[in-house]
Amino acid sequence: MAMRKKMIIDTDPGIDDAMAIFLALQSPEVEVIGLTTIFGNVNTTLATTNALHLLDVAGRPDIPVAEGSHVTITNGTKLRIADFVHGTDGLGNQNFPPPRGKPIELSAAEFLMQQASLYPEEITLVALGPLTNIALAIQSDPSFKSNIGRIVLLGGAFSVNGNVNPAAEANVFGDPEAADVVFTSGADILAIGINVTHQVLLTDTDRDRLSESGGKLAQYMSRIFGVYYSYHHDAYATKGRVYLHDPATVLAAIYPCLVTYIEGVVRVQTNGITRGLTVFCNRRKRFGEVTDWTDKPAVKVAVTIDAPEVVRLAMEKLINS
Amino acid sequence: MAMRKKMIIDTDPGIDDAMAIFLALQSPEVEVIGLTTIFGNVNTTLATTNALHLLDVAGRPDIPVAEGSHVTITNGTKLRIADFVHGTDGLGNQNFPPPRGKPIELSAAEFLMQQASLYPEEITLVALGPLTNIALAIQSDPSFKSNIGRIVLLGGAFSVNGNVNPAAEANVFGDPEAADVVFTSGADILAIGINVTHQVLLTDTDRDRLSESGGKLAQYMSRIFGVYYSYHHDAYATKGRVYLHDPATVLAAIYPCLVTYIEGVVRVQTNGITRGLTVFCNRRKRFGEVTDWTDKPAVKVAVTIDAPEVVRLAMEKLINS
Repeated sequence: MAMRKKMIIDTDPGIDDAMAIFLALQSPEVEVIGLTTIFGNVNTTLATTNALHLLDVAGRPDIPVAEGSHVTITNGTKLRIADFVHGTDGLGNQNFPPPRGKPIELSAAEFLMQQASLYPEEITLVALGPLTNIALAIQSDPSFKSNIGRIVLLGGAFSVNGNVNPAAEANVFGDPEAADVVFTSGADILAIGINVTHQVLLTDTDRDRLSESGGKLAQYMSRIFGVYYSYHHDAYATKGRVYLHDPATVLAAIYPCLVTYIEGVVRVQTNGITRGLTVFCNRRKRFGEVTDWTDKPAVKVAVTIDAPEVVRLAMEKLINS
Repeated sequence: MAMRKKMIIDTDPGIDDAMAIFLALQSPEVEVIGLTTIFGNVNTTLATTNALHLLDVAGRPDIPVAEGSHVTITNGTKLRIADFVHGTDGLGNQNFPPPRGKPIELSAAEFLMQQASLYPEEITLVALGPLTNIALAIQSDPSFKSNIGRIVLLGGAFSVNGNVNPAAEANVFGDPEAADVVFTSGADILAIGINVTHQVLLTDTDRDRLSESGGKLAQYMSRIFGVYYSYHHDAYATKGRVYLHDPATVLAAIYPCLVTYIEGVVRVQTNGITRGLTVFCNRRKRFGEVTDWTDKPAVKVAVTIDAPEVVRLAMEKLINS
């Protein structure tokens, strides 16, 4: 058991967050030592409720949930809540009962700092929502960026259009200032952008297979997927196909060989019409002048993903639950 | 002769501007009816001097030169002059004699409006520098955007890093507010970005061929290319290869089949660390909210270019001069 990777998932559940959490819990390679919550797909209070509920569903109420920030790091931005993607309850409008558990006393940022300090360089932090909690931990504790072993985050739209608007991806748009703090922190970061997750599709047929399987979590996912499929049909004019953003990210964190990446500096635009846009510097040109990318730490940005294998792993883990 | 396309070149000469102007003058398919000048590679005064000088060199002092704006459209920005690319005189530091001619009385914007009104929908305007003059014409004359037949512009870095910094391409960076006015004007626009022109390379061997040929303009270009080759060597760590940004653009205007393009809305970021960044909206997603791209006119953005044919045409026209 000593070889299991410790994992904390920072999450705003969220239909695909639910699937990502289940996949981590169904993976013997990792030990999920906590969930931290954030606004995004829902508000932070509801994210906490949903995180506790999902642990009930998975039979893992022993895992601690730490509630995250209710506001962006600058506290100057109206939150954008994507309830039109995930339902007003964030989990497909299914009227689930309230969870049995409660969040721990520590805030998400406090829990992240505590755990990183307890297990230096051992934790993989998977970030599935806006990066507020992580930026707060970075700003509060200078040792956090090195104590946290690795951050695998769903965020950014690299060389492609965003999903909030043509410039910005939803998680970075949710707190651009926080994202810029994280990207330039010097932590070991792998960013999985929607340029990559848009390659990972679940079909109607896959959903039917989940529904017909005996897997408890498979049937749960099949049930909550309705709203998510409807949104994709409306927004992307695709019929019977949805993007597995969060599941792809958590599987890339568990099985690093699923993705390839490039390394370079990422900065986030924080104002104007491209607020939330991520610009990766490929370092091929020596710019004559100092730029806002100069001398900043590099991060890894995923460029390819083994999409069929991600879908196969996701289906297998849910069906065998 | 009635079938020749009328062409105006808005230019900041500039070494590759010189080549572009010569290529247009050597193309029987087009009639160059004027040059307009702008800051960029040099300041506007020097751009005018150089435009007149280049017409002397080409034996075409009959072509009018209209001097353009000395400041950006908001007049709030320090100009960025790329003399480190083209030499302090903009033409490779060759101590050329002053030109014999003078600019006409009309400003660049006035000349553009006059000519577009005289020859409605007949003119191809090739824009090789910051888009200030064209934005001024658009703002001053509501009929200009339809009277001008077509605008083919060198500008933008679509899905790639810029050449001023990781976000911005030089011509758009030179006057981002003007670029946004032009891109959203509703005029018939083909944008050639550095994602395309970085495919068009002239080699040391090509330069030697120009030098050894009997072509008058070939020998002139070979002479002024020294500074430009040195800059590329330093900035891109390439040996003996330079980008033909402006020549590629003017040839794409003369021979449209050299490029393929996509259509969509382009907006320009005007502040923050990505000032001058161009974001193309591919219209694949129906965004839930109104965005800054919604209901704006589409433009054409080049995605491929027949680079070997561009180089072949450029070499042929110069060698036969």
